[in-house]
Amino acid sequence: MTKPVYGRVALIGLGLIASSMFWAIKRAGLAGEVTGYARSQETRDTARKIGLCDRVCESAAEAAEGADLVVLCVPVGAMGGVAQEISPVLKPGATVSDVGSVKRAVIDAVAPHLPEAVHFVPAHPLAGTEHSGPQSGFAELYDNRWCIVVPADDDTDAEAVARLRSLWEGMGANVDQMDADHHDLVLAVTSHAPHLIAYTMVGVADDLRRVTDSEVIKYSAAGFRDFTRIAASDPTMWRDVFLNNKEATLEILGRFTEELFALQRAIRTGDGDHLFDYFTHTRAIRRGIIEAGQDTDAPDFGRGAKKP
Amino acid sequence: MTKPVYGRVALIGLGLIASSMFWAIKRAGLAGEVTGYARSQETRDTARKIGLCDRVCESAAEAAEGADLVVLCVPVGAMGGVAQEISPVLKPGATVSDVGSVKRAVIDAVAPHLPEAVHFVPAHPLAGTEHSGPQSGFAELYDNRWCIVVPADDDTDAEAVARLRSLWEGMGANVDQMDADHHDLVLAVTSHAPHLIAYTMVGVADDLRRVTDSEVIKYSAAGFRDFTRIAASDPTMWRDVFLNNKEATLEILGRFTEELFALQRAIRTGDGDHLFDYFTHTRAIRRGIIEAGQDTDAPDFGRGAKKP
Repeated sequence: MTKPVYGRVALIGLGLIASSMFWAIKRAGLAGEVTGYARSQETRDTARKIGLCDRVCESAAEAAEGADLVVLCVPVGAMGGVAQEISPVLKPGATVSDVGSVKRAVIDAVAPHLPEAVHFVPAHPLAGTEHSGPQSGFAELYDNRWCIVVPADDDTDAEAVARLRSLWEGMGANVDQMDADHHDLVLAVTSHAPHLIAYTMVGVADDLRRVTDSEVIKYSAAGFRDFTRIAASDPTMWRDVFLNNKEATLEILGRFTEELFALQRAIRTGDGDHLFDYFTHTRAIRRGIIEAGQDTDAPDFGRGAKKP
Repeated sequence: MTKPVYGRVALIGLGLIASSMFWAIKRAGLAGEVTGYARSQETRDTARKIGLCDRVCESAAEAAEGADLVVLCVPVGAMGGVAQEISPVLKPGATVSDVGSVKRAVIDAVAPHLPEAVHFVPAHPLAGTEHSGPQSGFAELYDNRWCIVVPADDDTDAEAVARLRSLWEGMGANVDQMDADHHDLVLAVTSHAPHLIAYTMVGVADDLRRVTDSEVIKYSAAGFRDFTRIAASDPTMWRDVFLNNKEATLEILGRFTEELFALQRAIRTGDGDHLFDYFTHTRAIRRGIIEAGQDTDAPDFGRGAKKP
């Protein structure tokens, strides 16, 4: 058992991320007590039934009161309202953090509501599955995944930042630190734009009447399937991501469209060399990801096929 | 041991698809003898060293001579040339097939070279990994995957079609049958357009100087990674796919761009309802794929994280 990093942790919102945090905190004994709150009665009932949180509260303020760390695990668009609600009960010296996929918009929405005496240390764990809800969490979600810690400003208390980093490391994550604008751009490239593109491709496939739904599904292993996985993520969360990381996402999508048009033209004009060179280059990037240990090159992700 | 489906099978081209066919044929005893040929001396040497094919020949004609089934396993753009080369030695009553990812262009390129007395039954196994070459094959590649058989025309000998279907079933595949144009459209949606989009997104990420390469790779698990896997496929093969399925691919990409623009505009104007509805709908399509047994919903494909 590790020494607890915080006396009491409050999780506001009890979906995949928060429930996985709870199990990971328990696995390593990182907190004395974990309180939790979810807006829906049904979620609170489920949490109580499955033993999610030491204490499930009936309001965000009740859960946050007296906590050493309060983590906002609600959709990005709801963060500001929750911050306002819990603000009066926050303990001086407490840390407020979040797990939102965008950081500048969260800082803008949350910071104005927080008392002087509270440290604000936003964070973003890069982990997830296609499932959501209180029952989808598991202790290993953050093992060997990255968590990006984004202090709200340059004056953020160093000790408070170090403590939050310890919590995430204790939950199994590798921790990195950067400023909010850089975070939002990096994520626009590695996550937000790819998700929007995947959503779009899945929508197109579904819309095409000459290819029946069953054929699209039957033959999805040919490439389409990898798009559907990321297009199955939580709709509310992703709506808020795009609305709150508008600028960076639209910039990346603009560049994407430009490149796509160039490749479309190469196809139309029969410019095989252009296509070949482009595809050779992107293959090298894939090798880098495997070497960095961020994926396996096992055939088909071990979905069934095995190498002898 | 099953009864052999063919006396002698010739594999022209010895990459991932052909080498997996060889091991799958051997596993089930589907042929008396399998001959093989590859254009590069190095590939032929490797094949001999690892026991790939019963006999590795020094020309395509030598491998094809006297075979009951000749399977063209070369890039789509090379099929016509090989057909012309082997045409004089083909045994009357033999079947010629292929494994190309497009079918109309292959039929147009190959059929004119084949003698009257030979049956032409194109096929397309929907299976692959991100690896290529003679050493990348394994017997289980086709297990529970689809193979689409596309008879060259309506007059194709029914017995020849049935026999090729038996071979693929013997190698573990589920077999489906459709005409060439429909095949090319279905594959444009489920495979060709997704691949081009993935290639594009990987190219954009690499091009963006403000986000260093190492960051793109480090944080790839956030969505980008799923694009890189399909963008790592063989460049020659994919160049030929796009050049030979131009019309259907460009049609799908046109629709894709249209939808993407609509979503971009929803982001720009802050139309959250439009985004939410779109994402909810695409999520349902993902459920269909899992129910059809074409993917697993295990967290992260079991890449590391495990559900307790």
